Amino acid sequence: MKIKPKIVIIDVDGVMTTGHFFYSKLGKVFKIFGPHDTDGLNLIKKKIKILFVSADKKGFEISKKRIVDDLGYKLIYSHHDKRYDLIKKYGFENVIYIGDGIHDVKILKKSKYGISPKNARKEAKKAADFITSSNSGEGAILDAAININKKFFKE
Amino acid sequence: MKIKPKIVIIDVDGVMTTGHFFYSKLGKVFKIFGPHDTDGLNLIKKKIKILFVSADKKGFEISKKRIVDDLGYKLIYSHHDKRYDLIKKYGFENVIYIGDGIHDVKILKKSKYGISPKNARKEAKKAADFITSSNSGEGAILDAAININKKFFKE
Amino acid sequence: MKIKPKIVIIDVDGVMTTGHFFYSKLGKVFKIFGPHDTDGLNLIKKKIKILFVSADKKGFEISKKRIVDDLGYKLIYSHHDKRYDLIKKYGFENVIYIGDGIHDVKILKKSKYGISPKNARKEAKKAADFITSSNSGEGAILDAAININKKFFKE
Amino acid sequence: MKIKPKIVIIDVDGVMTTGHFFYSKLGKVFKIFGPHDTDGLNLIKKKIKILFVSADKKGFEISKKRIVDDLGYKLIYSHHDKRYDLIKKYGFENVIYIGDGIHDVKILKKSKYGISPKNARKEAKKAADFITSSNSGEGAILDAAININKKFFKE
Repeated sequence: MKIKPKIVIIDVDGVMTTGHFFYSKLGKVFKIFGPHDTDGLNLIKKKIKILFVSADKKGFEISKKRIVDDLGYKLIYSHHDKRYDLIKKYGFENVIYIGDGIHDVKILKKSKYGISPKNARKEAKKAADFITSSNSGEGAILDAAININKKFFKE
Repeated sequence: MKIKPKIVIIDVDGVMTTGHFFYSKLGKVFKIFGPHDTDGLNLIKKKIKILFVSADKKGFEISKKRIVDDLGYKLIYSHHDKRYDLIKKYGFENVIYIGDGIHDVKILKKSKYGISPKNARKEAKKAADFITSSNSGEGAILDAAININKKFFKE
Repeated sequence: MKIKPKIVIIDVDGVMTTGHFFYSKLGKVFKIFGPHDTDGLNLIKKKIKILFVSADKKGFEISKKRIVDDLGYKLIYSHHDKRYDLIKKYGFENVIYIGDGIHDVKILKKSKYGISPKNARKEAKKAADFITSSNSGEGAILDAAININKKFFKE
Repeated sequence: MKIKPKIVIIDVDGVMTTGHFFYSKLGKVFKIFGPHDTDGLNLIKKKIKILFVSADKKGFEISKKRIVDDLGYKLIYSHHDKRYDLIKKYGFENVIYIGDGIHDVKILKKSKYGISPKNARKEAKKAADFITSSNSGEGAILDAAININKKFFKE
């Protein structure tokens, strides 16, 4: 494990959130974020770059409010069709990728290190190197951060 | 398995949603839709017609926002009392039906192929040909779509 | 089992709802009601009187919207301190009581027949004659209604 | 167990709530409080002082509405970095502390008696003297209160 990863790329929905979308008759209005995850991000943010990605166009402003405005991280809109190419630019050998869906399988396999939450699709979990013991929106990112620290930053 | 089904008819509440109704003092205001299900619908939508039905009058506009406006599928109001007759018109031998409640039992039995989510009523699950491994609002429709593909469209 | 019960008295919070209270900075704003329960109430409403009770003053209008306005049942505000006396008036030998909390223990024991949802307090479940296989807000009342029908109305 | 504790200090998020944060595009808007916990607080409030603490600045008004306005208890904003020192002032030998996160570990260990909800971080549960059988937002505080009564007030 000589070369350290340079960036953690985290899919928002189903990883930082429970994956649920709350609809009123006006449309998508809420998402559920969980406890412990900011503690996880704090553990690793000085050691590795953190980038959030989301394919959810209609709920993008909700994710932006949490990820960018309240937590201070960078968030990019990235449709599943073009995400593989986006991540390729960072060099898969530098990337830790955290995802939960069937579109994440290829990226989880190709990345240096792939992580899926406990409640991710089984297809994603099969492709991941590490599966968190907490569900998404219930501490999965803290589990992931502790594992990343231990595995790559000897802490 | 010579004759392929021609239509998938999906009950919205408790199949596409968690089944929960959020009430404020003004009435029913939110429903919870989940992740992965749009991936499931994308898997089968070019192979078979998809129709959504709902018996929820007071929450119909909420379901319509998600199913019709945001996902682009057809949604029909269909009370439990008249649903059997509605589906009969399509010919039960052509129908894959996905439902979760006690009113769905008769239809699940009669349809070519019946599917119930993991968290459906036990009465529905007993009548179904396939039970998803995910709960409703947590990927049940992706499970169903993968199963439909495998069973009827050899993919 | 010669004498049939005359009334089913149902505690709203934690029986018809998940028990959760949603707070905004303006106060209690939402409660979660579930699927299947209206099917349960329909099963027994012609055979036995149904009465809902709630000790939740701040959320009373929310419960009223669901129970009274949308479902058409009677709902009485009944604080835990005075509920025992309220129910005594109906004659405990005539009452099926459905409750989930520690204040319900005495009433569950005293009533002709006591029912608690699967996710009720263990103290309540110990005092109940029947425990539903579904959680509150996920079909507990349909379970209860099927059981009541079978036990008291031979159906 | 000669000396009785003098104060119960309860972390709000993840102990009185499910830990979830509901976000709209306007920010953090809801938290979920649960049933049974007010019954728990009533059990002990005449025997020991109760104080709530929260490190959640953006959601503080939501917690205040529930804890202060609706339940009538005292709530202090207390960031994790300074909480240890805050509690030290009360004398750890007088404190029962209830917390769920990794920042609570040191305080749970140092306090006379530490309690964590069933769904707390494993690190917190390892440091606690008692783990509730209910999840946070589903009765953890009633479990805790019954345990405190039994352990320190012989009831």
